[in-house]
Amino acid sequence: MKKVGIVGFRGYSGVELIRILERHSGVEVYLMEHRQDAGARPQPLGAKTPKTIVCSVEAAQAASLDCVLLATHPDVSMDLTPGLLAVGVKVVDLSGAYRLRTVENYKRWYKEDHQQQDLLTEAVYGLPEFNRSLTIGARLVSNPGCYPTAANLAIRPLVEAGVVDLAAGIVCDAKSGVSGAGRKPSLKTSFCEVTENFSAYSVLTHRHAPEVLLTSGIEEPSFSFTAQLLPLDRGILETIYFRGKGIENAAALVELYRKRYEGEPFVRIYAAGEFPDLKSVARTNFCDIGVAYDAATGRGVVVSAIDNLVKGAAGQAIQNMNLILGFAETESLL
Amino acid sequence: MKKVGIVGFRGYSGVELIRILERHSGVEVYLMEHRQDAGARPQPLGAKTPKTIVCSVEAAQAASLDCVLLATHPDVSMDLTPGLLAVGVKVVDLSGAYRLRTVENYKRWYKEDHQQQDLLTEAVYGLPEFNRSLTIGARLVSNPGCYPTAANLAIRPLVEAGVVDLAAGIVCDAKSGVSGAGRKPSLKTSFCEVTENFSAYSVLTHRHAPEVLLTSGIEEPSFSFTAQLLPLDRGILETIYFRGKGIENAAALVELYRKRYEGEPFVRIYAAGEFPDLKSVARTNFCDIGVAYDAATGRGVVVSAIDNLVKGAAGQAIQNMNLILGFAETESLL
Amino acid sequence: MKKVGIVGFRGYSGVELIRILERHSGVEVYLMEHRQDAGARPQPLGAKTPKTIVCSVEAAQAASLDCVLLATHPDVSMDLTPGLLAVGVKVVDLSGAYRLRTVENYKRWYKEDHQQQDLLTEAVYGLPEFNRSLTIGARLVSNPGCYPTAANLAIRPLVEAGVVDLAAGIVCDAKSGVSGAGRKPSLKTSFCEVTENFSAYSVLTHRHAPEVLLTSGIEEPSFSFTAQLLPLDRGILETIYFRGKGIENAAALVELYRKRYEGEPFVRIYAAGEFPDLKSVARTNFCDIGVAYDAATGRGVVVSAIDNLVKGAAGQAIQNMNLILGFAETESLL
Amino acid sequence: MKKVGIVGFRGYSGVELIRILERHSGVEVYLMEHRQDAGARPQPLGAKTPKTIVCSVEAAQAASLDCVLLATHPDVSMDLTPGLLAVGVKVVDLSGAYRLRTVENYKRWYKEDHQQQDLLTEAVYGLPEFNRSLTIGARLVSNPGCYPTAANLAIRPLVEAGVVDLAAGIVCDAKSGVSGAGRKPSLKTSFCEVTENFSAYSVLTHRHAPEVLLTSGIEEPSFSFTAQLLPLDRGILETIYFRGKGIENAAALVELYRKRYEGEPFVRIYAAGEFPDLKSVARTNFCDIGVAYDAATGRGVVVSAIDNLVKGAAGQAIQNMNLILGFAETESLL
Repeated sequence: MKKVGIVGFRGYSGVELIRILERHSGVEVYLMEHRQDAGARPQPLGAKTPKTIVCSVEAAQAASLDCVLLATHPDVSMDLTPGLLAVGVKVVDLSGAYRLRTVENYKRWYKEDHQQQDLLTEAVYGLPEFNRSLTIGARLVSNPGCYPTAANLAIRPLVEAGVVDLAAGIVCDAKSGVSGAGRKPSLKTSFCEVTENFSAYSVLTHRHAPEVLLTSGIEEPSFSFTAQLLPLDRGILETIYFRGKGIENAAALVELYRKRYEGEPFVRIYAAGEFPDLKSVARTNFCDIGVAYDAATGRGVVVSAIDNLVKGAAGQAIQNMNLILGFAETESLL
Repeated sequence: MKKVGIVGFRGYSGVELIRILERHSGVEVYLMEHRQDAGARPQPLGAKTPKTIVCSVEAAQAASLDCVLLATHPDVSMDLTPGLLAVGVKVVDLSGAYRLRTVENYKRWYKEDHQQQDLLTEAVYGLPEFNRSLTIGARLVSNPGCYPTAANLAIRPLVEAGVVDLAAGIVCDAKSGVSGAGRKPSLKTSFCEVTENFSAYSVLTHRHAPEVLLTSGIEEPSFSFTAQLLPLDRGILETIYFRGKGIENAAALVELYRKRYEGEPFVRIYAAGEFPDLKSVARTNFCDIGVAYDAATGRGVVVSAIDNLVKGAAGQAIQNMNLILGFAETESLL
Repeated sequence: MKKVGIVGFRGYSGVELIRILERHSGVEVYLMEHRQDAGARPQPLGAKTPKTIVCSVEAAQAASLDCVLLATHPDVSMDLTPGLLAVGVKVVDLSGAYRLRTVENYKRWYKEDHQQQDLLTEAVYGLPEFNRSLTIGARLVSNPGCYPTAANLAIRPLVEAGVVDLAAGIVCDAKSGVSGAGRKPSLKTSFCEVTENFSAYSVLTHRHAPEVLLTSGIEEPSFSFTAQLLPLDRGILETIYFRGKGIENAAALVELYRKRYEGEPFVRIYAAGEFPDLKSVARTNFCDIGVAYDAATGRGVVVSAIDNLVKGAAGQAIQNMNLILGFAETESLL
Repeated sequence: MKKVGIVGFRGYSGVELIRILERHSGVEVYLMEHRQDAGARPQPLGAKTPKTIVCSVEAAQAASLDCVLLATHPDVSMDLTPGLLAVGVKVVDLSGAYRLRTVENYKRWYKEDHQQQDLLTEAVYGLPEFNRSLTIGARLVSNPGCYPTAANLAIRPLVEAGVVDLAAGIVCDAKSGVSGAGRKPSLKTSFCEVTENFSAYSVLTHRHAPEVLLTSGIEEPSFSFTAQLLPLDRGILETIYFRGKGIENAAALVELYRKRYEGEPFVRIYAAGEFPDLKSVARTNFCDIGVAYDAATGRGVVVSAIDNLVKGAAGQAIQNMNLILGFAETESLL
């Protein structure tokens, strides 16, 4: 039985971590009380009542935690991570603190200083479909952002296969449910502002964009990314446009994806012309991908869907935790 | 006082026609009972109770109607239009029956035969911002589709100004509220299927795409269009991606739009980096446009928003009706 | 042309006041900047751009305002009202500051002290269907709460007619859209907490209950009131249960209501067995009422629906403003 | 390993049966193809792919099914049930076919004839909290309606304890998500009709009312029931009003419920003044109950919440199936 701490367990990702781990056969959960969180409702009401400890390196060590899942803001992650690693506690960080590779790049996109270049270098970017072997031996896994998870799983196979005209550029039009913005009240996520509404934000400037550049290996001029807010709780759907080269037809494109993800437990490829919607993936750790391709003109469209709180956050974090703690990768996730 | 008939007055566009015309100072409304429509609720409960007549050319003539607004399916429009025109009644058709220019193109996109090449040739495509002078003298106005209205108002100024790299292609990622699908019950528009969901449909194959090609003057290989269903009642937001050339910066792009739409009562251009959302245009006849542009890489994004039932249907139809009947273009619409 | 100031014009009721007054033929609007309000979006984008002045008695006097509409919290209303009245500016207060008759009752329900017994005594409770003649001559009108408006219009005719068994009690099960909670961000009104949810609050303890007791003339033990939060923007529907006596059948009950509200422009009574829903009244100043009655057992149900921001707030405030400024009562409201 | 068939597996309750049974350790699922169902999407995409057989008594016998779950309309249930029982297959019927006790009562509420008085007499009403011992030995379990489940669990303890003034009557104001209406498309459940709306239906005439009378032991004149449609997918919340006698205070009322449901795995009683909302019970088999009580006046309010597709349908059906097949009652449900 491994012992796993959760920081930020009252946020939406944190509650999802608890919910999923209730079904995990090999993990004992410790809730780490960080500070006054927003409201009291999402307490676990299930069969297992997790222990609660204070949120500190000392408490983690005293409880002999094997791993801590950080569902927090980057500054909290940066405060806790070095100490936890120093006392031998592994970390899966759901924040953006360790997703970029250099302090300069972090400064550019997050508008704040980063003092831990060593950990930026060490952290494994936890997208198991591409980094599984590195993740298995890692002390520190940086859990990917929600948007980049859906984007990279759709885009990287195209780039790897050399079938996309990068000069024409790749467009990623991304739409997310409101839970992606976290649980802290704000006017932008107030019900009356969101219901019956839809809006774009961070057009061409979203801090998740560099994760796609780094992982899929494309240059900034080739990538246009827009984030948009859907009037719903959870789910991300991304519509990705590209110009293909050397692709015979839509079926060949499907086949390219199927080969790339053969044996992957959490990626499902649809038949040509069929597309996932958000209900296809809600409350699952799947990333579902569907494609359209017009061979005559080279116009290609890929639709990629995930649950932003599962494959886009808590589910993928547990997938990573399973890898670094030696559990079956799918434990509690299927 | 002009006399105006409405066919399809129980559908969502039809109800909107009634709602807007209640504020019109120069029009007397006649509801034309066509067949058993779906349900009884959307009866007008306002101050003015419109007259009801049967839906026929004879009845329109007997009532001395000046104009009929057809908020119907294309087949109904094709049945009624020749007869109405023959007895001197002008027609604004909200269906897709007369939006394309040839029977061949109609057959390709609508999958049905069209017998009225003469009316396809005669019909004026009623996008007043580009076809105002033609519309004024028309007998038959084909009211644009909801998606193409938002798309053409955003795209055509770029093409006209020659600032878009057409080889790289223009992407139009379009999202619509459910009322765009009409009022007939179907599983796809059932509440439980739509709420907390989002889905793409007609990817690269939507019948509204050719309206953009025709009006904005672009070739099919240059245009990628995806329609998507938002879990909300009304509104269309389109995110349009292009590669610019010869554009100094975002402000210059804003200026380009502002010049093009100077004096237009229903197009509003936002400052650079500001974007409309659906609430900006709900229940109005406005098309709101915001832009982002990265001069270093040439990546451009235009966000265009309308209410699909107003500027995308009933509002624009009344704007066209105002033009052909000699009213002020904004009458009942501001 | 009368001059009318609005305080709290960025809140949901304030924006609604602006929206309605844009159609008013006899009023010039002054927005009174009170303090930093939440966000900038709901600025009027219509044809008329209202003047903006600072929010003070002096500014109101300098601008020669005839009337000020207070869409604020009670404390702001209590700050401004005495001064405005002193310089001859009439006030319609949308807050709860002057709805109860005594400082003691205010203290009980609002948990705060009230220093203005004289104005509590003077204020006219602005439910025109019952207090029209008093309102016409008033300096200070206290605009009714949203819940009590729907409740009193449904209950008082029953009590007046003596057809309800008060010993068995009247139950008012009330449901409101989220805009009733105002625009200030809070966890309770955050999108992810409200969507796909429904909850009861202030069970038997809501501060709107005493308005029903006072206006409908019933005693507290006879009245059970529960407020509930609907996952939608606007609208109140109340389901009211009573035990009837001396009512022949449902049709007789309908007749009772129709007689009571004969000539009232904003109350609509449905045929027996037909009931309003929220769409029936959305964005209107109507209160719609439907009834069911089982003569064999005396069980009666009344369904009363309003738009909480219109008849429940801004619309009724303008109805009252029309009365005290001498306009037609329905001006800008039909 | 027991073999369990599902009829109506494409409806909302049927899909929920599949979803829950995927976690059941002792059941092998057989999908019984009945007729062309509405659409193809809700096919199980999980790890276990159920077998599919035709829907007939012969096929059930050939497959050696132990039990069949009928998630169908009453007429289908009445067609299949006698034959299944005759060949020794147990039945849990989720329709209303066997919930009432006599053909006369069925005729009154369902407006159709019923030919199987013997099965009406034999069927056990499967509300385990009250009928557990009868259920264990049953061949035919009639799964309670969604509304009556929430109502009876809240009301019957009050009636049993003799603390409610039945002369004053009990009011049950019930609100349900749209999935309760089933998956067949209709105007009433179309997205645009439901979103931003709320409506009452079957006021005093709902066919679920007699289930409450039968199970809680109250007379029709004492019970007022209204059903209402919430703009959300799943969940039922009922607000129940009564006049108490002999109840000291709210805490005593809580205690009454806690004693009654001691040891019950699926009923949770809240502290006085705390109330469940729909998110408290979504996707669970719990019925959550909260109370308010004003001892001075005897006004009592009980809020009862369930997921209409789980405790109100599929979950309770599996709870009953567990009982009749000898599994732990909570298997796959916690």
